Amino acid sequence: MAQKPSIPKGTRDFSPVEVAKRNYIFSTIKTNFEKFGFQPIETPSFENSDTLMGKYGEEGDRLIFKILNSGNYLSKNEMKMFDEVANNIELFVNDNLIKELDKENIIKSRDNINLDELRRELLVIIETTLLEYMSLSESYTEFLKYIKNNLDILTDCIIDILRSEFYTTYVDPNGKINYRRNCIDSLIGKIISKKTTSLISEKALRYDLTVPFARYVVQHQNEIEFPFKRYQIQPVWRADRPQKGRFREFYQCDADVVGSNSLWQEVELVQLYDSVFSQLGLNGVTIKINNRKILSGIAEVIGASDKLIDFTVALDKLDKIGEDGVKKEMIEKGISESAIEKVQPLFNFTGTISEKITKLADLLASSEEGMKGVEELLFICDNVNEIGLQTATLDLDVTLARGLNYYTGAIFEVSAPKGVAMGSIGGGGRYDDLTGIFGLKNMSGVGISFGLDRIALVIEELGLFPETVTATSTALFLNFGFEEAKYAMKAIAKLRKEGIKVEMYPDATKIGKQFQHADKRGIPFAILVGEEEIKNDLFGIKNLTTGEQEKVNFEELLKRLNNK
Amino acid sequence: MAQKPSIPKGTRDFSPVEVAKRNYIFSTIKTNFEKFGFQPIETPSFENSDTLMGKYGEEGDRLIFKILNSGNYLSKNEMKMFDEVANNIELFVNDNLIKELDKENIIKSRDNINLDELRRELLVIIETTLLEYMSLSESYTEFLKYIKNNLDILTDCIIDILRSEFYTTYVDPNGKINYRRNCIDSLIGKIISKKTTSLISEKALRYDLTVPFARYVVQHQNEIEFPFKRYQIQPVWRADRPQKGRFREFYQCDADVVGSNSLWQEVELVQLYDSVFSQLGLNGVTIKINNRKILSGIAEVIGASDKLIDFTVALDKLDKIGEDGVKKEMIEKGISESAIEKVQPLFNFTGTISEKITKLADLLASSEEGMKGVEELLFICDNVNEIGLQTATLDLDVTLARGLNYYTGAIFEVSAPKGVAMGSIGGGGRYDDLTGIFGLKNMSGVGISFGLDRIALVIEELGLFPETVTATSTALFLNFGFEEAKYAMKAIAKLRKEGIKVEMYPDATKIGKQFQHADKRGIPFAILVGEEEIKNDLFGIKNLTTGEQEKVNFEELLKRLNNK
Repeated sequence: MAQKPSIPKGTRDFSPVEVAKRNYIFSTIKTNFEKFGFQPIETPSFENSDTLMGKYGEEGDRLIFKILNSGNYLSKNEMKMFDEVANNIELFVNDNLIKELDKENIIKSRDNINLDELRRELLVIIETTLLEYMSLSESYTEFLKYIKNNLDILTDCIIDILRSEFYTTYVDPNGKINYRRNCIDSLIGKIISKKTTSLISEKALRYDLTVPFARYVVQHQNEIEFPFKRYQIQPVWRADRPQKGRFREFYQCDADVVGSNSLWQEVELVQLYDSVFSQLGLNGVTIKINNRKILSGIAEVIGASDKLIDFTVALDKLDKIGEDGVKKEMIEKGISESAIEKVQPLFNFTGTISEKITKLADLLASSEEGMKGVEELLFICDNVNEIGLQTATLDLDVTLARGLNYYTGAIFEVSAPKGVAMGSIGGGGRYDDLTGIFGLKNMSGVGISFGLDRIALVIEELGLFPETVTATSTALFLNFGFEEAKYAMKAIAKLRKEGIKVEMYPDATKIGKQFQHADKRGIPFAILVGEEEIKNDLFGIKNLTTGEQEKVNFEELLKRLNNK
Repeated sequence: MAQKPSIPKGTRDFSPVEVAKRNYIFSTIKTNFEKFGFQPIETPSFENSDTLMGKYGEEGDRLIFKILNSGNYLSKNEMKMFDEVANNIELFVNDNLIKELDKENIIKSRDNINLDELRRELLVIIETTLLEYMSLSESYTEFLKYIKNNLDILTDCIIDILRSEFYTTYVDPNGKINYRRNCIDSLIGKIISKKTTSLISEKALRYDLTVPFARYVVQHQNEIEFPFKRYQIQPVWRADRPQKGRFREFYQCDADVVGSNSLWQEVELVQLYDSVFSQLGLNGVTIKINNRKILSGIAEVIGASDKLIDFTVALDKLDKIGEDGVKKEMIEKGISESAIEKVQPLFNFTGTISEKITKLADLLASSEEGMKGVEELLFICDNVNEIGLQTATLDLDVTLARGLNYYTGAIFEVSAPKGVAMGSIGGGGRYDDLTGIFGLKNMSGVGISFGLDRIALVIEELGLFPETVTATSTALFLNFGFEEAKYAMKAIAKLRKEGIKVEMYPDATKIGKQFQHADKRGIPFAILVGEEEIKNDLFGIKNLTTGEQEKVNFEELLKRLNNK
């Protein structure tokens, strides 16, 4: 029976045009990663559960997709054992189970029961159960051994279920047996219960690229030459509630360096953002920078490190609700008026980056850590400024507090050009102990990430995808029949050897339909070959945009198509 | 506590060099796919289970990786409900459960039981159970409602378990409580048993690219312009027993056309194989062709369609065990001597393709279907021959019987150049009803696939990877200190704008260590910038292969690095 095809919620099919557009972005990012000395690695789609679990907080753990254990490999011995078990089960149903049910007065009291039907039903139930359970079992051997040793438990189990559910569910108004579902469920439960839960799932789909990267670095530390600049462009999976712009499968594009504390890397990462977005034609993005140590300094000054998030969230609303509104919110959140007074300069935090940093230096003078942050900011901003950016702007944003739990130095976030309503299209920062969780201490890392889906939406909205970004052919040879097709195919083979994307319409159908095909596919040229052309070794080439049509020889044809 | 990092069996990490080599192959295949007019699509990594299950036979179903349902989204209301349930459970343990246990004489009879400890243990058991179960639940709401409505079942359940297991497992030799594992397992089982198994898993990882492609075509039939030439290069997952060269995650590279019966497509697919392998430098591959209709014809002639596989398997051993050996095996398998006599020409099946086809035409003259196969073969081979191949050889192999269950026309398989011990490195064929299973009839497809992992092994073995296939930088600027680094970074920014891959060693450590870094990374040039160079606006460039060192200006530096 035909199924109506669909895909899981939160996932997407990508059509040729969509793939081409995404590949254009991937390839731009990749080229720039490599220009900046980053090298690609790839890690498996699923990791051992204990590599991932506990790394993303409780909420994260819940959003990790777990994979059911499986892998049932029938050896000959196992096959034999399975046969034996299957036979035993049949015997057991015929000889024991029915008798037991009888003895327990479960059957006797019913008049309208057909024993043969019951026997068949029970066999089906057990078989289905076994099959279901198999798919959860580590190996056949284990599974079969268990079943073999537990036929009595199986009896008890079935009797239990029948005893409790028989009278209520055995006979429905039509006298039909309908307890099967309940029986199966209960049986599966009972059987599964004999195994530990880890049997159910020991693997999980990658949730981000950072934890697998940390795992990779530790596992391969002896092969890696540090500092290690790696990039990784792979999908990740999250069991998040799907909504507009949020998917359960999406790509992350990360570049990180581990093994050096040098702030030149922060400088380079700002340049990398600038380089990628400039090449994509996405001019005017703002690369916002902050520093964890600045935030710690502010927390010190306001005397409430637990209020830091409340503080930055409120301060971030300055544009919307004004200074009074922000202060009101801060006080509501329990930040004292005297604390707010101390950071008054933050309410008029304008000017160039240098001016802002100077203001911060005044403000945080009493905080050793805060001043360390100021120093770091200064190094990064000065050098970025001196080397220069192409089209992006670097700006200091003290309300930027992403990744507060793991970032220890610089924090980055990129916002789309003004006028485009879109959240951040990239982010990153420095984390001093990336690999500690896997046992490798003192390995500082710094990295950035590109938000592919959002970047694609912005480029689409601004109409910045180059027209040439399609994966379509340059020319379609029309098919006028066997001899013409053969002539065409010979030319096509030569054109392809020159690297030109061409194809022939496979069937000699109506020419109108073939033209329509070229049109719908967005193919710019149709090549027409009839008797006349074959005789003179020519090709009719029709520009499908202008309608112009000419006859040319092969050299000329090659030249025309090569220029596209 | 640090975990020892590892990855699941059958999966792989890919280092930068490995990724670069694989990308070289991917990109060659991709370029050729597009030259031949194929367009890329991508489908989600996981599909709905019912899209995949039942499509690959029983064995295949077992090898599909199933994903546990998940997605637990705490709304405020749910949070409240959860608190309530948690409180109820605590009350229930304190007030009811202990009393019930007492009433049932489960506790009374034991002297060495500490009631407080028992209470704590029971709470832990229940909490753990709830947490485990949550991760299997469709939503919190559903889960919480169930728990709320079933506290009495929970009581019964726990009492049941304790009643049956208490005496045997409650007290171990040290007097410690150790029934927890059993309890948890039983509880989980009981709770899970209330749900149908489909709750456990409704999604599964892609097992191949063909079924998702068929699903895609049917789902998007109104957007697709047919004939549809698509390619797809994505990973697939199989829970196969891992072994040398067989992985649980691996890439498939497929090109298929749907929507046309034209045999020109078979001709093109042979050319496509030739084009890819020629471009990879993998000369001398053999593209073996056969046709399902030829096999049906042979089955007709030997009068035993159920013996077809036995027949082809035996015939395939001709080289190894000789004509007599093959015939002996055939007779053992139940093929009659008179049948074998009828296909005698197959025992001396040599010559050019045309000669072989002529022999087949004689042999299968009585079989209508067989003669249809001969005709198809003739068309494909004639035209391939007339247009010509670059480096591959097309050969007819009547023992080729892959995909017998679904292929209906041409069957392809590619074997590595002679002398390389490797199974097939590609395969494909025509299937007349690709999309029927999803409700779209009369949609013929034909396609081929490239075996990436094996191709990579062959290219490695033959030393055919170009030297330039690394993802490493062209030059490393050494770091002599802040001023030198700044000077270097300015030059680097300009070089990168020209598309050159360069980087600077981030720290001003010992120069010997920096040279070593360049060496280990395989970076061909080191750029040295000291006071002297800065003063004169020059760069020291050292060729790390030859040891040659010179001072050059920026233009010259750019030229040197550009030529690499």
